[in-house]
Amino acid sequence: MGEFKHFVIVKFKEGVAVEDLTKGMEKLVSEIDVVKSFEWGQDIESLDVLRQGFTHAFLMTFDKKEDFVAFQSHPNHVEFSTKFSVAIENIVLLDFPSTLVKAPA
Amino acid sequence: MGEFKHFVIVKFKEGVAVEDLTKGMEKLVSEIDVVKSFEWGQDIESLDVLRQGFTHAFLMTFDKKEDFVAFQSHPNHVEFSTKFSVAIENIVLLDFPSTLVKAPA
Repeated sequence: MGEFKHFVIVKFKEGVAVEDLTKGMEKLVSEIDVVKSFEWGQDIESLDVLRQGFTHAFLMTFDKKEDFVAFQSHPNHVEFSTKFSVAIENIVLLDFPSTLVKAPA
Repeated sequence: MGEFKHFVIVKFKEGVAVEDLTKGMEKLVSEIDVVKSFEWGQDIESLDVLRQGFTHAFLMTFDKKEDFVAFQSHPNHVEFSTKFSVAIENIVLLDFPSTLVKAPA
């Protein structure tokens, strides 16, 4: 069975200190053990029409759905989400069990 | 230096045979060596308001940006993209060098 993924894409409001937020997120995941892996990035390559204004992607991996649920209700996450949500203009979240088709060597 | 990521989120048109497309994508990545890893999933957990109609996420990993560029121009990918694009109602693509903060054990 695959892992459980929490996938977030974001467009930040103008003037937001994005680096503070990404640092905050890095700190957050380092504090919460059930987050198995975390990676993020800022789009540099996609066409504007395909990017639709979104600029940042955040991907968290959990061993199982229950770990994701525990993460969501963790007080540090709840606190961070409040701070994060005021900084964003648009967001899409997708949470799903992952089907791994091709694995890293 | 991190890997290069190609993230796609999709809302399919009604009546589309989604499984044919995901199988097609699995076949595609199996044919193209520069795709280092590929995983995908269908949202089961996010709130409708946060999902914004998107249902599927596709995540590809490449060793470096040049591999992603080679993938994009690969004839099999070009052919698949044509088929894929007629099936989608909405899509967001983000392509970026990944910052790995927390690595799988």
